[in-house]
Amino acid sequence: MKIAVDAMGGDFAPEEIIKGAVLGAREHGIGVILVGPQERIQAELAKYDTSGLEINIVHTDEYLLGGEHPAYAMRAKRNASIMVATKLVRDGKAAAVVGAGPTGGIFVAALGVLGTLEGLSRPVIGGEFLGFAPETAVFDLGGNVDCRPDQLLDFGIIGMVYTRKWLNIPNPTIALLSNGAEEGKGNSLSRETYDLFKKSGLNFVGYVEGHDIAHGKANVIICDGFVGNVVIKFCEGLGDVISQWLEKRLLEKLSKDEASEIVTALRKATAPADTAGGGPLWGINGVVCKAHGRSKAPEVAGTIGTAKRAVEIDLVGTFKTELATIRSALNIVSPNV
Amino acid sequence: MKIAVDAMGGDFAPEEIIKGAVLGAREHGIGVILVGPQERIQAELAKYDTSGLEINIVHTDEYLLGGEHPAYAMRAKRNASIMVATKLVRDGKAAAVVGAGPTGGIFVAALGVLGTLEGLSRPVIGGEFLGFAPETAVFDLGGNVDCRPDQLLDFGIIGMVYTRKWLNIPNPTIALLSNGAEEGKGNSLSRETYDLFKKSGLNFVGYVEGHDIAHGKANVIICDGFVGNVVIKFCEGLGDVISQWLEKRLLEKLSKDEASEIVTALRKATAPADTAGGGPLWGINGVVCKAHGRSKAPEVAGTIGTAKRAVEIDLVGTFKTELATIRSALNIVSPNV
Repeated sequence: MKIAVDAMGGDFAPEEIIKGAVLGAREHGIGVILVGPQERIQAELAKYDTSGLEINIVHTDEYLLGGEHPAYAMRAKRNASIMVATKLVRDGKAAAVVGAGPTGGIFVAALGVLGTLEGLSRPVIGGEFLGFAPETAVFDLGGNVDCRPDQLLDFGIIGMVYTRKWLNIPNPTIALLSNGAEEGKGNSLSRETYDLFKKSGLNFVGYVEGHDIAHGKANVIICDGFVGNVVIKFCEGLGDVISQWLEKRLLEKLSKDEASEIVTALRKATAPADTAGGGPLWGINGVVCKAHGRSKAPEVAGTIGTAKRAVEIDLVGTFKTELATIRSALNIVSPNV
Repeated sequence: MKIAVDAMGGDFAPEEIIKGAVLGAREHGIGVILVGPQERIQAELAKYDTSGLEINIVHTDEYLLGGEHPAYAMRAKRNASIMVATKLVRDGKAAAVVGAGPTGGIFVAALGVLGTLEGLSRPVIGGEFLGFAPETAVFDLGGNVDCRPDQLLDFGIIGMVYTRKWLNIPNPTIALLSNGAEEGKGNSLSRETYDLFKKSGLNFVGYVEGHDIAHGKANVIICDGFVGNVVIKFCEGLGDVISQWLEKRLLEKLSKDEASEIVTALRKATAPADTAGGGPLWGINGVVCKAHGRSKAPEVAGTIGTAKRAVEIDLVGTFKTELATIRSALNIVSPNV
């Protein structure tokens, strides 16, 4: 298996990306294709022991610069490194692509080159985002803003496959986020979606409310991307404000180190970016893994491992099968926008 | 000024309600009309010094019982104490009504007897709900689930009047909650509403995101009641989970009292019910104040003071004027459902 890596994307590119690629190739026993300016990559590779590793270079001079608007920049830079790397997946030369550059660039390349799974109009953003509820994943967290009921069902199917195959939860419970627990509650979207979920054959447990997210009341919690985005960002903001407040209070009674240990743990548990920021993009017709922009070598190597795992458990293939099976049982024809 | 008080509503009714009414009448120098079974009320009143106080009784034998479904129960009990108390406001015999019984009962009475302000189809729920952002009120928090743009504008007007007259913020900033800060972001509802706000003459500052709530980025933050309800309940759940976690961590390093002091402060700051649970219902054509079900005499007296203040600053009249002025400037004709 070979993983394509955008050597030029990320705050510490190319140095840390290339270092991480070497590390990842060795740790995970797989081949890596580094995409970027050949000479720069070779100069970096020369610093490491690459004996026995399968590391190739695909050359391109173009790459996204920090501060560029990804969508506009990619129109001008048809051979941007993230674009070339993603094409290697399309052409069967790599099993997955890993990038630490701007999210927008990775999205544009993934959408333009690989496209979405049949029936999905946009990638789906989701995952477990709260350290306190590690077995609860929320979909969608911002990719899809105005949704139809069948889209929410798609999120449910993607969430089910994700929690089952990725988080190893055998029969994940799926719930719809609502403003009340009883069946008659909800807005018009959630009420329409409720029936669809009931008929879907998924392990649907009905509505959950906002407080049930932190209490981990279901394994997959479904909402439209507007609501999901507000919630995940509210979580971030509240975690931030509580951490600041707590630090002051604790410093009155504890040493700096003791206070910092507690505050750091709290920040980590409430910082969605740290919990869910890296990882595969769901809903893309291929494995595309985003690493944090601030990734250093170990994180890059870790994301390469993540990509390998997504390929090995055939996440994308399972998404396709489950989406097709459940949709066809319900006679759903999703408009592919 | 006289305030009608439902003597029979609340976990500690009628004892604590009547004790609180006596206290409130004295503290706030106003008259109180206690509504309920005359003999029971008289027996309770006999326990206190009521000299110089203007306390009347309006008799009714009927009242809501704990566990009854308020809406159904009120159909059978046309003379339920909360109903009779609310009618005193309608008939000009009381300036406001205070109740500590089930929210549903207070809502049904308020809606049925006083109705909503012109153009509003349901009461609006809102207020500052986070101890960390005391000058930020969010509307709607669950009263109105599927909204039109002109309804969101109404929430903005109510929020503006509330923060200006109630929280004494001279020129409150108003923002729309969205999934991104730029003008093009949002869902179809928020995008349509954006223009309406821009033209409204309100101190509109554009979109804010989820994390801006805890950071208090605007004085009034507007969203539909589905989103608001999910957010306020998520806040409650997260506050709860963090408090539990923190308590364990702190007990490893601090005394029980020291840990409890910090955890209690955190719980209070993140428990929306404690911050915003009591107070007037917005959007009703009259002053209706809900006290917590678990209110004891001091809280009842406090809510009587709240009702007095709402009457004195003519909150309802200002709502009416501002709603009419801004709507007519924008040529909005709201369907009164």
